[in-house]
Amino acid sequence: MTAESSALFLNIIISLAILLFAAKLFAELFHRIKMPVVLGELLAGIIVGPFALGGLPIFNGEPLVILDETVKHIGEIAAIVILFIAGLEITPREFLRGGAASFTVGSLGVILPFFVGYYVFTAFGLEALEAMLIDTALTATSIAITVQVLTELGKMQSKEARLILGAAIVDDILAIAVLSVVTTMVQTGDTTPEIMDITFLILKILGLFVVLLIGSILIIPRILHVEQLWRSEGSIEGIATAAFFGAAGIAAFVGLSPIVGAFSVGMAVASTRVIKQVEEYVSKLGIIFAPLFFAIIGAQVDLRGINIEVLYLSGIIIAIAIITKLIGCGLPALIFLKEKTNAIKVGIGMISRGEVGLIVAGVGVSSGALSTDIYTTVIIMVAVTTIITPVWLKMVYRKDRRSTNSNQMQKSIT
Amino acid sequence: MTAESSALFLNIIISLAILLFAAKLFAELFHRIKMPVVLGELLAGIIVGPFALGGLPIFNGEPLVILDETVKHIGEIAAIVILFIAGLEITPREFLRGGAASFTVGSLGVILPFFVGYYVFTAFGLEALEAMLIDTALTATSIAITVQVLTELGKMQSKEARLILGAAIVDDILAIAVLSVVTTMVQTGDTTPEIMDITFLILKILGLFVVLLIGSILIIPRILHVEQLWRSEGSIEGIATAAFFGAAGIAAFVGLSPIVGAFSVGMAVASTRVIKQVEEYVSKLGIIFAPLFFAIIGAQVDLRGINIEVLYLSGIIIAIAIITKLIGCGLPALIFLKEKTNAIKVGIGMISRGEVGLIVAGVGVSSGALSTDIYTTVIIMVAVTTIITPVWLKMVYRKDRRSTNSNQMQKSIT
Repeated sequence: MTAESSALFLNIIISLAILLFAAKLFAELFHRIKMPVVLGELLAGIIVGPFALGGLPIFNGEPLVILDETVKHIGEIAAIVILFIAGLEITPREFLRGGAASFTVGSLGVILPFFVGYYVFTAFGLEALEAMLIDTALTATSIAITVQVLTELGKMQSKEARLILGAAIVDDILAIAVLSVVTTMVQTGDTTPEIMDITFLILKILGLFVVLLIGSILIIPRILHVEQLWRSEGSIEGIATAAFFGAAGIAAFVGLSPIVGAFSVGMAVASTRVIKQVEEYVSKLGIIFAPLFFAIIGAQVDLRGINIEVLYLSGIIIAIAIITKLIGCGLPALIFLKEKTNAIKVGIGMISRGEVGLIVAGVGVSSGALSTDIYTTVIIMVAVTTIITPVWLKMVYRKDRRSTNSNQMQKSIT
Repeated sequence: MTAESSALFLNIIISLAILLFAAKLFAELFHRIKMPVVLGELLAGIIVGPFALGGLPIFNGEPLVILDETVKHIGEIAAIVILFIAGLEITPREFLRGGAASFTVGSLGVILPFFVGYYVFTAFGLEALEAMLIDTALTATSIAITVQVLTELGKMQSKEARLILGAAIVDDILAIAVLSVVTTMVQTGDTTPEIMDITFLILKILGLFVVLLIGSILIIPRILHVEQLWRSEGSIEGIATAAFFGAAGIAAFVGLSPIVGAFSVGMAVASTRVIKQVEEYVSKLGIIFAPLFFAIIGAQVDLRGINIEVLYLSGIIIAIAIITKLIGCGLPALIFLKEKTNAIKVGIGMISRGEVGLIVAGVGVSSGALSTDIYTTVIIMVAVTTIITPVWLKMVYRKDRRSTNSNQMQKSIT
C-alpha cells in the first residue's frame, strides 16, 4: 500500500459509509411512507452522489463521495450478491418447468423494444447505427430492482415472480447477444451483418448459458455435499460464496453478464441440503450489499445535462421503453398465466433498465456514434424506468390485496 | 461501466473467488492437522497469489489472480471488519480499566524495537535514515492475526487477550506517530528533528485517538438507540456498518490508521443494547472477510528476491523483531498480569508485523532511502513474524491446557 493509495482508500470508505448511511436512512423513511425501499435507496444515492451533495470537496479536496473503480466494482459485486440471493429462491427444476414461458416472455421483451425502437427512431431521422445503439439500451431489464421489490412484498415465491425471474434471465442473455452484435457493428462500422452471423452469435450465447447452468447444477452440490471435507464453521458459506463469484467471473469470461453466473449457482445451491444455512448467511450480506448497490446506481445519475431537447427525446424513449416491455412481456405472460393482473405485474416488473443501458450508452458515446445529448437521454431513461418500476409494481400489488380483501368481506357478508 | 472496466472486473471476481476458495480449503486442512487456521489462509494466499500459481496467464492473458487496487482495497476493508469485530468483544469501560497496562505494554513494545533496532543496524554499518526506516517497520504489531487465533481458541474474553488488544491499539497509534516522523524525515532528508516536535506529534496523535474514542462512545449509542427510527429489518446492522466505515475513514483522515476507527466503533457498540444483533450479523461478514484478508496478505508475498545476503540480514531483523516484542511487551505484561505463562502469551501475541511494515518498506524503496535488498528483507520479516505468531501462540495455549489437565488429574487422584 502506497501513500496515494492510502489517501484514495480514505475517500473510498468515507464514500461507502455515506452511501450506506443515506441509503438506510431513506429506506426507513420510504418504509414509513409505504413507498418501495429500493426507491429510497436510489434517491439517497442521487442526493449524496458526487453530482449533488456528495460533490462538496471536504476531504483532501476530493469530493466527499467518489465513484472510483473500487466503489463501482463493489457496486457490481453487490449486483452479483443480489442475483445469487434471487437464484436461491428457485430450484433448477422449477426454472426448467417454467422454461417455455420464461423463454417466450424474455425473448419478446427483447425483440419488441429493439424493432419498435428502430422503426420509431429512424422515422424521427436518427442514423441506423445511432438508432440501433439506443435500441440495445432498451432491451435488457435490470432485474435487481424488481427482485428487491418482490422480496419486500414477500412475493418471491409467487407464480408471476418466478416468471419475471426466468424471463429476466433469458432477457439478459439475449440482450448481451444483441449488445455483442451492435458493439461489433460500432467497431467495424458495418451496419448490415449477415443474418446467419447474428443467429449464430445468439445461439452461441444461449448455448453458453445452458452449459454454465448445467455445469453449476452438476458441480456445486458435489462440492457442497462433501460433509467430511467442510466441517469448520463458515466453510460451506465461504465455499458457496467463492462458487458464485467464480461462476460470475466465468460467465463474464465467456461473454455473458456476471449476474447470470451468480444466479445459476444460486439455483444450484437451492437444490442442496445446505440451502437454509447459505440463505441465512447471504441474507446478512444482503443487508449492506443491496442498499449499497442501489445507492451506487443512484449516485451515478447526473441530471445536469438536461435541456428541453433532451427532455423531449427522453419522453419518446421512455414511452417506448415502458410500452414495449408492458406489451412484449405482458401479453405472452397473459397466455401462460391466464390471469390479467398477474400478467400486468410481469410486464411492469420487466420495465426497469440498468447496466446494459449504461454500458451501451458508454460504448456509444466513447466511440463517437452517440451524441452527448442522446447519451444523457439514455441515462434519464434508465433513471426513470428504474424509479417507475418499484412504485408501479407496489401499487398494483396493493390494489390487488385491497380487492382480495373486499372480495373476502363480501363473501363473509353473504 | 466501460468495456475495459468489465474486463478488469472479470479478473477481480475470479481472483476473489480463487483466493476465497483456496483460503477455505487450507483453513479446513489446517483445522484438521490442528494448526492455526489463519496460517492456512496465509499459505493459501502465497500459493495461489500472482507470484506463484496465480501468476499463470489464463484469463485474457492476465494473471489468474491479480492484486489490483480493488482487491487490495477489499483486503483493507476486510481488516476494518476484523478490527470492528475485535472491538465488539470489549466495552469502553473494560478498555479504560486496562488503560495503564495497555499503555505500558503498547509503548514499550514500540520503544524497544525502535531503539534496539537502531543500535544494532547502525552498528552493522547502515545509514541512520535506513536504520530508522527498518526500525519503524519493526514497531507496529499486526493485530488481525492474533485476534483470529484468539477467537479460534475461544480466548478472546481472557485477561491476556484484553491486554493484547488494548496494547495493540496503543502500539498501532504510536507506530503511526513514529511513521509520520520518519516519513517526514525521508521527505525532508533531515534526520535530526527537534525532540519537541516529535513529542508534540506523538501527543497529537494520542489526543486524536482519545477524541475519536470519546466521540464514538458518545455518538454511536445515541444513533443506534433511537428505536422509533430503525424499525426496518437490517437497519441497525446497516447503520452500525456505515458507522465503523465512517469512523475508519475519519481515523485515516486525521492521520491514524483506519482500523483504529473501526475498533473504537466496535467498543462503542459493545456497550449498546443491540450488541447481540450486530455481532450475529458481522460474524457472517467475517466468514468471507477474514479469509480474504489473510489470503490477500499472503498473495502479496514475493519470495523470488531472496539471496544469501538477504537471508542473512533477514535473520538478524527477524531475531530483533521477535526478541524486542517478547521482552518489550512480555516483561511489563508480567508486572500487570503477575503470571508468567500469560505474560509470555502477550509477548508472543504482539510479534506479528503487517501493514505498517509494508507501508514503511514501500515508502522507503520508492524514495530511494531503502535498497531493494532491504525492502525484500522487511517483506520476509513481515511474512515470518506473521507465520510464527499463530503457531507459537497456539502451541503455548495447548501446552497450558495440557498442564492444567494433568494438574486436575493429579488433584482428582489425590
